[in-house]
Formats: sequence, structure tokens, C-alpha cells
Amino acid sequence: MANPIDFYFDFSSPYGYFASAKIDELAEKYGRAVTWRPILLGAVFKITGGQPLPTIPLKGSYAAHDLARSARLLKLPFKMPSKFPIGTTAPARAYYWIADRDLALARKVALALYRAYFAEDRDISNPEVTGNVAAKLGVDKAELTQALNDPAVKERLRTEVDAAIERGVFGSPYIVVDGEPFWGSDRLDQVEQWLRAPW
Amino acid sequence: MANPIDFYFDFSSPYGYFASAKIDELAEKYGRAVTWRPILLGAVFKITGGQPLPTIPLKGSYAAHDLARSARLLKLPFKMPSKFPIGTTAPARAYYWIADRDLALARKVALALYRAYFAEDRDISNPEVTGNVAAKLGVDKAELTQALNDPAVKERLRTEVDAAIERGVFGSPYIVVDGEPFWGSDRLDQVEQWLRAPW
Repeated sequence: MANPIDFYFDFSSPYGYFASAKIDELAEKYGRAVTWRPILLGAVFKITGGQPLPTIPLKGSYAAHDLARSARLLKLPFKMPSKFPIGTTAPARAYYWIADRDLALARKVALALYRAYFAEDRDISNPEVTGNVAAKLGVDKAELTQALNDPAVKERLRTEVDAAIERGVFGSPYIVVDGEPFWGSDRLDQVEQWLRAPW
Repeated sequence: MANPIDFYFDFSSPYGYFASAKIDELAEKYGRAVTWRPILLGAVFKITGGQPLPTIPLKGSYAAHDLARSARLLKLPFKMPSKFPIGTTAPARAYYWIADRDLALARKVALALYRAYFAEDRDISNPEVTGNVAAKLGVDKAELTQALNDPAVKERLRTEVDAAIERGVFGSPYIVVDGEPFWGSDRLDQVEQWLRAPW
């Protein structure tokens, strides 16, 4: 069986949101599974000196325009959140905790979290909001909220982020196909060509 | 007649090189001309706080990989120059000086300058090298070399760079179609879709 594709993303990354809406369908076309790996860009940016694109002068206003335009092209609902960027430990921990129990459900929750933040302007950095989004899909909210502060769950996310940095992940989305890295939702076309035939 | 497309680029920008190889053909398909506008990213980065991508930790090694891979996909000769980035006042001034006399020739020289730098590892920041590249296409080298230090030619480039910054240009390539800005060679697909039908 072919290797799964690694899909690294931060729940606060708008281009990650765009990629999240396409990556599974794309992979499936080529008989691949996708391992979703939420990370914390804040930890990554400490090393790369990066900044969230929309906060950089000149680039910021362009980014806002580019995001809205790209979303329309992709036919995805999108509204720049009033609070941006946000810390995403709550949704990221929630993802891993759910994924370790029910991978398909975790995928649905991830998509719903992204949509809550980037289409409905809900602040998913708040564990309550993350809990509500997950609960609507059948996750036990009380159990999840408790898990978000469980040292083992915290450690799980930390390990994932460290492993991502170790691997050279520096942005979101960051997609690895058979060891080949692709950064950015605008590399999905190259990801597809790579899946078809590496060059 | 439809508006020409504005194509801003720095001669030291590898993604600008990629775009330069495609932009005219793309525009022609939709009955458009292209106004080539070399700029100096150094002046822009003073405002945006930007850095050349390949010099940033982690992103740097990814960028080198991405550039080689993208070049192969585009079937363009590419070799990361041993001196990078470089100041590009010489080739940029040369471009405007030639363009004011013979636009078609300037275009050929620009393509040759990009190729000299990114395929043949020739240091086009050196006015002698820029002169040699242009001379091979029929430009009078002595006249050109003298023009590179002409205050009017210097002023011409300065004016272009200031106008670009004023317009919000912050990177290379940066392409404007009917007032709509697109940043990056990976937005050429959106440029094409915009030319076909804005959304």
C-alpha cells in the first residue's frame, strides 16, 4: 500500500484551511491516505523568524485580498476572522485526542473547526468553542474539555510539533509526499503532478 | 484595445525569472500586451521588512529545492547562482534605457539577462556583464555602459521603483491585470483565469 501523505497545518492558517478542503479528495484520486498533522506555527516561527503573512506591511493588505479572491475561486465560504492570528493549542490538542480514538471523526471535527474559524468567525482558540464544535459532531464535550488539560495530551501535541520542526516544516500548509515537501496551498497542483508522476 | 498587463520583477528574483518565461505568451493568448517593469527589491524590502526567501532559515533550503523542482517542471534551465542575491541596478537601468529606444529588443535583453544569471551563473550585477549580454543582442556596449551612469537613467529607475512601491508592489514577480494584483509565479494560473473571466 502506498505511503500516506503528511498534511501539516495550523488551525489559524487560512491557506491551511484552503488546502484542508482539497487534500483528501486529491489524495484519494491517487489511492493515497492523508495523515493530518495540526501544528503550532508560533513554535515554528520562533525558529524561522517568520510572521503571519497578513500582519506584514503591504503584504498584509495584499494577503487579505488574495485570500478572499482565492476562496471565491475555490468556492469556499471565507470571512477574515475578527481575531487573527489565534493560538491553536485547543483545537490541535482536540484533534489528536479525537484522532487517537476515531480518525474519521477527527477529520470531520478538523474541517468543522476550520470552517467555524474562517467562515463563521468563531474563536476556536477558546476551548469552550472548540468543545462546542466537536460536540455538534458527537464528541463528549466534558470529556474533551478535560482532555485538553491532560498532561499526556499536551505532550502528544508537543511531540508532534517538535517532530515537524525536526523535519523542516516551517509553514502551513506543508505537505510531504514520499519524502518530497511542498509548502503552500498554491503547490497543490505540483502535489497532484508529483502523485501522478514525480519529475 | 485592452489594457496592458504590468509585470514587476527584480532581476535577482528566481520566481521572477520563471514568470518572465511565461508571461508574454500567456498575455498574448488573451490579446494583451505586457509592460515589463524591473524594480529593486532591496528598496522595497526596506519598507516591508522582507528578506530574500532563500536566505531565511529552514525556508532557505526548502526554497532551493522548490526552485530546482519548479524549473524542471517548467522545463527551464536553472542553476542557483553562486552569488545570491545581487544588486540589480545595472540590468534594471539597462532595461529602461533600451526599452525607451527599442521595446522589443529590451524584452530580448531582459530574457537574456535572466538566463545569464539563473542558468549560466553570470553576475549581472556587474555592469560589464550586463553590457556583454546586451551587446550580444546588438546593443552598443560602450553607449549602454555610459548610460548606466547617466543621471537621467538613474532617475528613470528611481521613479519606476517609487511608483511601484506607491502602488503596493512588495515582491517579485508582481503582476497587475486591470488593477488586480497577483503576487508570485504560482499565481500565474489565477492571472490566466482572471484574463479569461474575473470572478
